Amino acid sequence: MYDTGPGCSSLGYGAMEELGPFRVNSDGRTLFRNEYAWNNVANVLFLESPAGVGFSYSNTSSDYSETGDNSTAIDSYTFLLNWLERFPQYKSRDFFITGESYAGHYVPQLADIILSNNKLLTNHTAINLKGIAIGNGWIDDNTCSKGMYHYFWTHALNSDETYEGIGKHCDFDNGNFSSECYKYQSISDDEIGDLDIYNVYAPPCNSAATKTATYSGSDFDPCSDDYTNSYLNLPEVQKALHVKPTKWFPCSAVGWADSPASLLPTINRIVSKGISTLIYSGDTDGRVPITSARYSVNALKLPIETPWRPWYSSNEVGGYVVGYKGLTLVTVRGAGHMVPSYQPQRALTMISSFLSGKLPPKN
Amino acid sequence: MYDTGPGCSSLGYGAMEELGPFRVNSDGRTLFRNEYAWNNVANVLFLESPAGVGFSYSNTSSDYSETGDNSTAIDSYTFLLNWLERFPQYKSRDFFITGESYAGHYVPQLADIILSNNKLLTNHTAINLKGIAIGNGWIDDNTCSKGMYHYFWTHALNSDETYEGIGKHCDFDNGNFSSECYKYQSISDDEIGDLDIYNVYAPPCNSAATKTATYSGSDFDPCSDDYTNSYLNLPEVQKALHVKPTKWFPCSAVGWADSPASLLPTINRIVSKGISTLIYSGDTDGRVPITSARYSVNALKLPIETPWRPWYSSNEVGGYVVGYKGLTLVTVRGAGHMVPSYQPQRALTMISSFLSGKLPPKN
Repeated sequence: MYDTGPGCSSLGYGAMEELGPFRVNSDGRTLFRNEYAWNNVANVLFLESPAGVGFSYSNTSSDYSETGDNSTAIDSYTFLLNWLERFPQYKSRDFFITGESYAGHYVPQLADIILSNNKLLTNHTAINLKGIAIGNGWIDDNTCSKGMYHYFWTHALNSDETYEGIGKHCDFDNGNFSSECYKYQSISDDEIGDLDIYNVYAPPCNSAATKTATYSGSDFDPCSDDYTNSYLNLPEVQKALHVKPTKWFPCSAVGWADSPASLLPTINRIVSKGISTLIYSGDTDGRVPITSARYSVNALKLPIETPWRPWYSSNEVGGYVVGYKGLTLVTVRGAGHMVPSYQPQRALTMISSFLSGKLPPKN
Repeated sequence: MYDTGPGCSSLGYGAMEELGPFRVNSDGRTLFRNEYAWNNVANVLFLESPAGVGFSYSNTSSDYSETGDNSTAIDSYTFLLNWLERFPQYKSRDFFITGESYAGHYVPQLADIILSNNKLLTNHTAINLKGIAIGNGWIDDNTCSKGMYHYFWTHALNSDETYEGIGKHCDFDNGNFSSECYKYQSISDDEIGDLDIYNVYAPPCNSAATKTATYSGSDFDPCSDDYTNSYLNLPEVQKALHVKPTKWFPCSAVGWADSPASLLPTINRIVSKGISTLIYSGDTDGRVPITSARYSVNALKLPIETPWRPWYSSNEVGGYVVGYKGLTLVTVRGAGHMVPSYQPQRALTMISSFLSGKLPPKN
């Protein structure tokens, strides 16, 4: 599992607020168990990536300025090889890579390196890659941008005029954005107002309602970021984690040398090599919304094997699924950008099915 | 205030679950105060309409078979005139009509009768109609149907193929629906699955999560229907309400003689007579969704006076507003079909602004 970015922490978000075994109580000092942790169904490794993010660091400061997609993939791959040498009991296990948001880049890039290097390895065991899963992933600049503005309009966050202006002046098919296009994008942003675009229906942490509400284990607490930030900066926690004492940040400002406009060719290559691929999307995220995922997957032009249908978790519609040849698109109902944070039970149902090679349940 | 239908009760929904002064506790026998009741800002009258619905009845059973838009409007108007004779202290007050869902028919039709009869009255005082408000209203068969399927697709409830099939075979502009169109509409319904389409993100009443959750005053409790049903069927409650002892139903099967395909001409006429008109929409309703409201309002071709912007309630985005000449379109963020039920505070902010002739607040 690795997460978001560029520059955001998998440990802070992925482990402590989404799918890890523990969550932080509102005191910022103590933990409670996450009943729907993904380590119920797999051994989960969280990677603070690249160096400079979270607890990851380099002793060579120039490393930070060369950070980008390429270096992140290579460093992650090197880490994995060495980690498996250190813990050889995991070498023969099935291996899956998951991530969300900008990990729409990281996940397929790491998978790609693993696949192309597996056959070249002489003094390492090949990594037994079985599948990749990308949640609300930024996998193509054009389809994702187009989907975002479409989502804004259909979810009543933008005016008709702004949506029309963007459609007229932003050439999403070719990635040509005029100054008129940027003007309309800026108006779009103003029109949305002071909203958490990562979950368009969620309360903000600072609301009066939030402060008086009580959150149980499976409810989303919009102030989780604060608790985690506090917890991971406790000296005794850092000591227990065996990390270098540091001021931990959820997201770090990192330079970014390279970032391809589209990962669709990479994903196509991975799918064609028989690595099962899951594209999932929380349907209340406005930042990398479900419309973006649909436009992206459609661009892959894969044949449909199982038509669109609802799937169920705990007798409720967990979302919808459509099975393509080699790739599955799954939506998670009522989930924002960080899917397991908002819908932990549905997310666990989804990933359990994926790990066992099935579509999420029919009922 | 009157409500939904055809055949549903304003007292059960509107008063007891949405905007009335009391809500029913989960025991089905006792009440608690609704802090965000609309009678904080107005005297509110709930009308069980037409006869045969809720506690309304006729002693002439043939009346039931002739029920329709026309008879409902005439009966409501007659009721109002007589009610004002009985309570003359309200005759000079500003009068507003509000309603939701099928009241997209009732509200403009009653307003129309009032306006055309006001000048003819000889032995009654004219009704001082100032405004009408319609929430998630079915005001035009074509724009509302088109908006519904558009909402289904963009909210990831339907497949691409089904949306395309509906777009190709259902002629929403002219209201021509072929058998192919109905086939795709049926597929659309299957694809959605077992979901509360009136609030696509809400839990159902029967879920395990619901049974263990605790709901405070401003949270939506998905089992509210059950509590209200139980309460309004208590003999002591019916006695206290001075109604005929009866088996009360939230919705009744009523025949329907007449129902025009579009209320847009009526609304245009009302707007042109200077009656301020509010079209509002909870944005998580899939049954008469915000896309339907937008298509409907666009069809009126009114000039925009105040461009689209967010509005705020308790420092959060309450939704969005656009001001047209004589008409205002307001969305309520995170609200399903029964807006004040899901977002009581935002609904009160919205209606307060409307009653005082203002757009909802900028911050």
